[in-house]
Amino acid sequence: MKCTICNQKAALHLEHHNLALCSDHFPEWMCKQTERTIQKYSMFRRDEKLLLAVSGGKDSLSLWDILWKLGYHADGIYLDLGIDQGTRYSCTSGEMAQAFAAQRGLNLTVLDIRAKYGESIPEMGARTKRGHQKPCSQCGLVKRYLLNKAALDGGYDAILTAHNLDDEAAFLFSNLTHWSMQYLGRQHPLLPATTGFARKAKPFCLLYERETTAYAYLNNIAYVYSECPYATGSKQLRNKTYLNRLEDEQIGFKYQFYTGYLRALEAGAFPAGQETPEVLEQYRCTNCGQPTLSDGLCTFCRLVKKN
Amino acid sequence: MKCTICNQKAALHLEHHNLALCSDHFPEWMCKQTERTIQKYSMFRRDEKLLLAVSGGKDSLSLWDILWKLGYHADGIYLDLGIDQGTRYSCTSGEMAQAFAAQRGLNLTVLDIRAKYGESIPEMGARTKRGHQKPCSQCGLVKRYLLNKAALDGGYDAILTAHNLDDEAAFLFSNLTHWSMQYLGRQHPLLPATTGFARKAKPFCLLYERETTAYAYLNNIAYVYSECPYATGSKQLRNKTYLNRLEDEQIGFKYQFYTGYLRALEAGAFPAGQETPEVLEQYRCTNCGQPTLSDGLCTFCRLVKKN
Repeated sequence: MKCTICNQKAALHLEHHNLALCSDHFPEWMCKQTERTIQKYSMFRRDEKLLLAVSGGKDSLSLWDILWKLGYHADGIYLDLGIDQGTRYSCTSGEMAQAFAAQRGLNLTVLDIRAKYGESIPEMGARTKRGHQKPCSQCGLVKRYLLNKAALDGGYDAILTAHNLDDEAAFLFSNLTHWSMQYLGRQHPLLPATTGFARKAKPFCLLYERETTAYAYLNNIAYVYSECPYATGSKQLRNKTYLNRLEDEQIGFKYQFYTGYLRALEAGAFPAGQETPEVLEQYRCTNCGQPTLSDGLCTFCRLVKKN
Repeated sequence: MKCTICNQKAALHLEHHNLALCSDHFPEWMCKQTERTIQKYSMFRRDEKLLLAVSGGKDSLSLWDILWKLGYHADGIYLDLGIDQGTRYSCTSGEMAQAFAAQRGLNLTVLDIRAKYGESIPEMGARTKRGHQKPCSQCGLVKRYLLNKAALDGGYDAILTAHNLDDEAAFLFSNLTHWSMQYLGRQHPLLPATTGFARKAKPFCLLYERETTAYAYLNNIAYVYSECPYATGSKQLRNKTYLNRLEDEQIGFKYQFYTGYLRALEAGAFPAGQETPEVLEQYRCTNCGQPTLSDGLCTFCRLVKKN
């Protein structure tokens, strides 16, 4: 197969776009597509100060690379979750993120959860009542809270995450099959800033995982290959498997599924879930001052204070 | 396992209801559940004249049996679609339906599509441009049109179909993954009558397929076992397979999925799809007088007039 643009040997066949691209034109296309998504949803501008959540994986390092090439000013933040049992997962991820930043002279803040709050994510998980289960819900809570806090404390205009189309389609699938109305009302590529919450944007939301992987590969970006050891057997991974089958049967399925949702959202679907956090979170945490759902400590402070 | 009510040997374990029932109490429970659904959605009353779409399968014959036992007055209508190539599918189905009605002294109208309109469903499918494909869309159109016409012409208060929870969950899954907003706004167990359209109700919508199958078996109802030969490899069957896996992993998944949708619908999700047919269908078919989307013949009359 030949590159649609230059007729050289194609590196990737993007069937859903009816496009084949070589190893030169595919990375260019990725930059253009990312810029298009940023503009389409008015995510952020070149004169704004951005904070990117960097995990050391293919998605966040590829996005950081593209933002840098496109002339956006994004600092990185790496949360060391302390997930290392036997796998050195967090350790390796952190090393990859730091090497990437050093090579390009980019700013990376490393926040060691255990050093700062006394416990790693697995330790927090083990201490709570559901300690026999995986610490994924605690991990999600900690990441959301600390990324938002870092953005607010650092005076950033927006926080970016590198969730790709496969991630978004899997979240959507889960939210739809469980009718999580609050999430269904707000699973948008751009969430504007509200009191106590930084603006959030997902510039990779319309790009397939195989595209971000190919970008990292073709640009010689060294990233952590392994998944989080707690991801094995997770519902998110299972949903991705279902969606992969649907994609196999119908090219472009995930793209249609996710963009169809965005159109439905714009047409007024899920109005009950579109309440902004201010409506829901009318209290202030007595420890950190963040908006919360009830009087007293917020869920993050309850989790770490129990220690 | 013992029956939760009488402690005799259980015939069926209804895990999602945390209930085990014997061969006497399970059919009783099915009647109660059906009555509960009829009341919950104010579907119809005992003094109304009802028309049930009877296919000769386990669902429609079980529903007819239960309605009869509950004291509702439902006549049956069997549409002979002429799907018989090698399988005698329509032929056998019709015989099952007629034998059932005769045993109970119930009224069954048999409408032979080919005798009335000159062509069987496979012949209609073969004639249209997409004749190389399965005739499922033509079949759906013909059934919807003729059932509605039979209800209106016969002065019936409502038309009933025996779609079960597995059917409804699979429709919903398909409508959600493709964001079919018009269907998503109207996939309700009860659709009230509107100009030109009879009231439609689905009293089995909250019962699993394995429950309707068990009911038919325990009541010695002879029904056609085979699926329509065109159903093999259909998207509806494929969706059912996905949902069966989700049900295996999470007991009661389909029930939660479908009732969650009904709650979302009541909370105002999918407002764009909730337009009544009158809003959309402002014209009248120049042949049959049915409301249509555009001037001239309705889709049914276009299909059969081309012959």
